[in-house]
Amino acid sequence: MPYICAMLQNDLLLKAAKGQDVERAPVWLMRQAGRVLPEYRATRAKAKNFVEFVKNPELACEVSVQPVDILGVDAAIIFSDILVIPEAMGLPYEMVEARGPHFPKTIQNKQDIDALKIADAGDLDYVMQALKLTKKALNNRVPLIGFCGAPFTIMAYMVEGGGSKTFSKAKQFLYTQPLLAHALLQKITDSSIQYLKGQVAAGADLIQIFDSWAGVLSEKMYYEFSLKYISQITDALSPLVPTTVFAKDAHYAIAKIAATSCQSIGLDWTIDPIKARAQAGNKTLQGNADPCLLYADEKTIIHETEHMLRSFGKNKYICNLGHGLYPDLDKGKVKLFVDVVKAYKW
Amino acid sequence: MPYICAMLQNDLLLKAAKGQDVERAPVWLMRQAGRVLPEYRATRAKAKNFVEFVKNPELACEVSVQPVDILGVDAAIIFSDILVIPEAMGLPYEMVEARGPHFPKTIQNKQDIDALKIADAGDLDYVMQALKLTKKALNNRVPLIGFCGAPFTIMAYMVEGGGSKTFSKAKQFLYTQPLLAHALLQKITDSSIQYLKGQVAAGADLIQIFDSWAGVLSEKMYYEFSLKYISQITDALSPLVPTTVFAKDAHYAIAKIAATSCQSIGLDWTIDPIKARAQAGNKTLQGNADPCLLYADEKTIIHETEHMLRSFGKNKYICNLGHGLYPDLDKGKVKLFVDVVKAYKW
Repeated sequence: MPYICAMLQNDLLLKAAKGQDVERAPVWLMRQAGRVLPEYRATRAKAKNFVEFVKNPELACEVSVQPVDILGVDAAIIFSDILVIPEAMGLPYEMVEARGPHFPKTIQNKQDIDALKIADAGDLDYVMQALKLTKKALNNRVPLIGFCGAPFTIMAYMVEGGGSKTFSKAKQFLYTQPLLAHALLQKITDSSIQYLKGQVAAGADLIQIFDSWAGVLSEKMYYEFSLKYISQITDALSPLVPTTVFAKDAHYAIAKIAATSCQSIGLDWTIDPIKARAQAGNKTLQGNADPCLLYADEKTIIHETEHMLRSFGKNKYICNLGHGLYPDLDKGKVKLFVDVVKAYKW
Repeated sequence: MPYICAMLQNDLLLKAAKGQDVERAPVWLMRQAGRVLPEYRATRAKAKNFVEFVKNPELACEVSVQPVDILGVDAAIIFSDILVIPEAMGLPYEMVEARGPHFPKTIQNKQDIDALKIADAGDLDYVMQALKLTKKALNNRVPLIGFCGAPFTIMAYMVEGGGSKTFSKAKQFLYTQPLLAHALLQKITDSSIQYLKGQVAAGADLIQIFDSWAGVLSEKMYYEFSLKYISQITDALSPLVPTTVFAKDAHYAIAKIAATSCQSIGLDWTIDPIKARAQAGNKTLQGNADPCLLYADEKTIIHETEHMLRSFGKNKYICNLGHGLYPDLDKGKVKLFVDVVKAYKW
């Protein structure tokens, strides 16, 4: 089922990412494929568990398209998980209800790292199939976003064995075994590049790199152990499609991220749009509403969203939240946020 | 047992906090009273549970003095918990092993807030007794630090019911019930001021305000719901003793914190010392080594600690970590950190 290239009916996201003038800012939402939509939960119920759900291309396609139909967002993002990479490299994970990811085996030494394979798109064929199905189902209405976790974030899970407030075990590994950490990060990076090139071949129009745990690192360690590898990924991918780097809580790194070959920079809600603009050069910015804003009344949502739009400006801006949607947000409030962005008179 | 005022043998901490010239920077460690010391764990074993431990002045005194004797730090901090305030206001908590604090009842509406009392030092007499005992046991060797949680952090626990990665329930309360949130924050603030004045009367030489969950708020909300109340506390306490404000992850707020009546500003490890200095005016800075640095080898610990000392400079600086000690850190490495600071040739 080869992907047939055709013109997108709505290419606002790609134009904004590339810095081209737009009539309005595009909008999509991190974690839009999932959680808040009852339709997602209905599809989710068809799979035995989360990992099986992620591995089912038909179900992944279904939930990837849902927010385009239901919320009217300007892009779809493929439903998947950043932890498919460790699994493809030989380190499987489980998703424990209400607790999060868990790795029965973790990475602790050179032997563990040597045993990992460098994954390629073939090892993640279910994601490629999901992308192709989604691309077809979207029928060129909106762009399709592919993604991966940043190598440091992936490594953090592989060493720590699951989520953590401090990721102190993963950081201990950086401090005590820096050479091994670099070897592991390089293997993850090489796998991610192959994986993302496959995603582009399967139909992804833009790639986002999620560095969810950037914030546990100091500035110096962030550049050495995270941005260095993100930079390799943007160098490999940006010639193919626009790339977005979202390094949550790495407030100090905006200028350095802007200096990579990425096209746009995701911001969390602790970042001031004006200050970010001053550091981001000619790069596009994405974000950054507090997800909790969507708990507020309609008037507050409208007021704050419009204020955010004015702060970022119409061009070189992709409207989004500063983090993923929370599961208990009201679907109507989420749709209101999207509608406000689409109706805003620039 | 009235506290008899006498000259401190080592008043480096107070001089540094007040911005006076010192021969070297003082050093202490957040969470030094606890966790990493086997001596702490031996004392801890004498109490039935964590809450009972906190309420026992003799045991609290014992673990408060331990780090002065064992690690040679330049200050003691009273062993207690920030959650004694909600308890004194009428909302008790439990400490669940390996999970953290849990509030069986939480604050959800006006009735819940009305039912809370404004606590005073008399409601926390066990802390006052612990301070007096510790002050006596220290015998004027080093200053004694008292503390409280910032009103927003305390409120976050009272509404959320425990720890959380996002504190989305607490933030939902801010977004949906801002007037009630302000009423609750004011009650916590009034209680904290009475409590801290009591601590000073009982012997505390410096007060630190811990805003552990500052980082979940956007800049605008931080000023409205957190710093406003911290500022009331520093206004009430700073005329009595130096105050330190530590707002973890509130990277954007340094200049605004410096504009309060506090004497010093605590920094986490994501903050660059040079940039912080530029924003902090004439205020003293405290911090900010990554706790995970203490997992590293001795050479790395020495190198990074000395680099940090040079970055902050000798005066207007209190050496510390950027967060509390982690439980699995090696006592010898922790002592090395302290020794490096004390031996540094300025």
